[in-house]
Amino acid sequence: MAKAIPSRSEDYSLWYNELVKKAGLAENSQVRGCMVIKPYGFAIWEKMQQTLDQMFKDTGHENAYFPLFIPKSFLSREADHVEGFAKECAVVTHYRLKTDESKKGVVVDPNARLEEELIVRPTSETVIWDSYKNWIQSYRDLPLKINQWANVVRWELRTRLFLRTAEFLWQEGHTAHATKQEAVEETELMLNVYADFVENFMAVPVIKGVKTPSERFAGAVDTYCIEAIMQDRKALQAGTSHFLGQNFAKAFDVKFAAKDGKEDFVWGTSWGVSTRLMGALIMAHSDDDGLVLPPKLAPIQVVIVPIYKTEEEFSKITEVVSGLTADLKARGISSKYDDRDTQKPGWKFAEYELKGVPARIAIGPRDLENGTVEIARRDTKEKSTIELGDAVSYIADLMEEMQTSIYEKALNFRSENTYEADSYEEFKELVEKGFVYAHWDGTDETEEKIKEETKATIRCIPLDQKKEDGKCIFTGKPSSGRVLFARAY
Amino acid sequence: MAKAIPSRSEDYSLWYNELVKKAGLAENSQVRGCMVIKPYGFAIWEKMQQTLDQMFKDTGHENAYFPLFIPKSFLSREADHVEGFAKECAVVTHYRLKTDESKKGVVVDPNARLEEELIVRPTSETVIWDSYKNWIQSYRDLPLKINQWANVVRWELRTRLFLRTAEFLWQEGHTAHATKQEAVEETELMLNVYADFVENFMAVPVIKGVKTPSERFAGAVDTYCIEAIMQDRKALQAGTSHFLGQNFAKAFDVKFAAKDGKEDFVWGTSWGVSTRLMGALIMAHSDDDGLVLPPKLAPIQVVIVPIYKTEEEFSKITEVVSGLTADLKARGISSKYDDRDTQKPGWKFAEYELKGVPARIAIGPRDLENGTVEIARRDTKEKSTIELGDAVSYIADLMEEMQTSIYEKALNFRSENTYEADSYEEFKELVEKGFVYAHWDGTDETEEKIKEETKATIRCIPLDQKKEDGKCIFTGKPSSGRVLFARAY
Repeated sequence: MAKAIPSRSEDYSLWYNELVKKAGLAENSQVRGCMVIKPYGFAIWEKMQQTLDQMFKDTGHENAYFPLFIPKSFLSREADHVEGFAKECAVVTHYRLKTDESKKGVVVDPNARLEEELIVRPTSETVIWDSYKNWIQSYRDLPLKINQWANVVRWELRTRLFLRTAEFLWQEGHTAHATKQEAVEETELMLNVYADFVENFMAVPVIKGVKTPSERFAGAVDTYCIEAIMQDRKALQAGTSHFLGQNFAKAFDVKFAAKDGKEDFVWGTSWGVSTRLMGALIMAHSDDDGLVLPPKLAPIQVVIVPIYKTEEEFSKITEVVSGLTADLKARGISSKYDDRDTQKPGWKFAEYELKGVPARIAIGPRDLENGTVEIARRDTKEKSTIELGDAVSYIADLMEEMQTSIYEKALNFRSENTYEADSYEEFKELVEKGFVYAHWDGTDETEEKIKEETKATIRCIPLDQKKEDGKCIFTGKPSSGRVLFARAY
Repeated sequence: MAKAIPSRSEDYSLWYNELVKKAGLAENSQVRGCMVIKPYGFAIWEKMQQTLDQMFKDTGHENAYFPLFIPKSFLSREADHVEGFAKECAVVTHYRLKTDESKKGVVVDPNARLEEELIVRPTSETVIWDSYKNWIQSYRDLPLKINQWANVVRWELRTRLFLRTAEFLWQEGHTAHATKQEAVEETELMLNVYADFVENFMAVPVIKGVKTPSERFAGAVDTYCIEAIMQDRKALQAGTSHFLGQNFAKAFDVKFAAKDGKEDFVWGTSWGVSTRLMGALIMAHSDDDGLVLPPKLAPIQVVIVPIYKTEEEFSKITEVVSGLTADLKARGISSKYDDRDTQKPGWKFAEYELKGVPARIAIGPRDLENGTVEIARRDTKEKSTIELGDAVSYIADLMEEMQTSIYEKALNFRSENTYEADSYEEFKELVEKGFVYAHWDGTDETEEKIKEETKATIRCIPLDQKKEDGKCIFTGKPSSGRVLFARAY
């Protein structure tokens, strides 16, 4: 087939890039580091977005929209935040172009310099807390639970489609609460929403945990995260939820009057997932023939391909298909009948395997005679011949079965590639092979040295960490539980 | 009530601004010209967005996402386009900040200057046609019908919430076709989709027409538009659909091979509506007490307010309400039970009038005795006492009745404020009072002079223009039909 991609074992990184491009998910644009999300890729993102949006609303959040631009001075208000975010970003300095002297192009008008430069938002805490200052006066205004879907820009040097791009799409939730406890609960609730989504819709198992201080969001008191394993055994951070304490409230002077009249700063959280999830979805399940999509996120769940020689056969097949698609739709299953005569069935089979359509129904003359259809599932490539009358319920069951089975496969893969290391020698060997749980003495220095020497980082201190006395693999100092190490995206 | 707004007759412009702010729709941000769309305003926009998005999909369009930034040189490719769009825009010149010497803030790093400046998209034709060049090779790749939901920036000097802001949200459709006819049909189809949406969901009647050359989109062959009248009798352009001819295809070298192998440039269209529609929705229907929303776009369709003195009354009312909201939900009607004890019923009544909730149900002790509820409709303020058992079907009918009635009211308003002028004297008088149909000689000069002298512009050459011989009101030269003049937003 024309669109074949390299195998994972050959070159994992090239496999990923070619898959993203050839399956029509995304491509690089002429603008450095910015991607174009193509219709098929965007349709998957839309499904993710709609599902998450409903989950946010079900947990009491509302959407709003805040400005793209942040005045430069806002970034400096929160001391840690400016260190983390004010560096690699897109800076707007002028607001006008003018025709150049040759009259063939345009140049920046030097007279149109902004008094204060504007930063294209890398994240919106500052501009949002600046609004919250006016929105919050009393306990009656709390909690304030707002989410926004937006584009953000971080000037990354090395970019990769979906995984790391200068501009990306995301959602960012920003909440304000009257008590610390409520804010911590919100942080944990949203981490659980993310874990629920990634496991039950994306079919990717995750480990929930807390970041070490060095990996914390700039301006947060605690950063919670979910970590997933990819097929190259590297970790991918799939979502983060931050407990901000009163840091941003203090930086933007956001106080509220309690029921008893006392004034205090409010407690904040923020949490986000981005188009990076697309990268996780692709890398967790796909194979050398292309994408493997969990049915719940597949824009097309079933493709139907006619196999015929004569016009008569074609029209008989089309008649069968029209009943079939109607019945599938009634069961809430999306399908596409690919009746193009410009491509052969074999070409179509390869195309839909590349695009990860979960099920393929093929109908040929023999099927017409026997009253059957051939159903192939994308994940295992198994084919079955099914009575036409049973096809719809077979497909409905198959969708559920595949959703579970894709998850189970990823879970088994993680189990098979997760280790415990009790010495630094052992650690160095195992971390080449996957996730490693090991004891750590809790210091930034040790974390940094292990990273320098092995390229592995502490992904998180797992929430379900067992109490277990041990010794730090690097310094031998005492530790009370294992943390998760891995090389990461 | 604390939140009262000025009346329309007092100060229409102030009425609008205060209404937008006090109803919780939007507010100005600290960033010049950029607004914050608040949760209630965003909920209305989301309803508009979801409805339009489905209409686009039903007409065969797919969503995608293209970069926020446009290389400066792209803008110069299409000669008219650069004139129209390259002027007032946000220019990114640097990609890094650094800590300043006092270590108290950040400054732009002079070493991080971009080789080529990037423009924050004011519209995306250039960056999209640059991609289409690679996506289109043969007739098999056509038509290409793509839409994107995005933020865009135009550096406006005078801004007004929703109506004219530096950053705004919109959708932009960009299609490519094999023939001129197909592209013209697409342009007209999307104009009709917009008209359908604005009339049947926003309940705002529109006049469909074609812009004069001087008002055309920069780079288009023809610009179609829909124009609506506001309560101050000014016109508001509610949507545009552009037939681009082969202009962008030529500028970005987008050719295709036809079935017979011949190569030709493709034909293009683009079309968009923006958060400006929020301004139209607000200004077309609202009154001195606040918003009036057509039920189809109201985030909350029914609010239920309990009126009680004792806890016992309150719990009985709450029991009745729980059945009522479930029944409303089953009928697809959204409702909210405002059981807050921090506000009095009168305060709540005023609040939901301000927010334009279509129907209000009040239940008090006498209603409990009589088995009734009081239902008030927002548009006419009429109240009716209805048997509890009939309430849900009464509300369901009321939603339909209000949707129609709000539209009819706006249509009557337009009829009452639309005139024909046959002399310039008459024109000058009538154009103070509303829409004026008059003869025009078809020249830019006349159009420009009339605009200078009366502030009225030609809104459009109506699509349903009657053939009628006449004389231009300004020059006396012959004209074959009337065009629509008005002062406009």
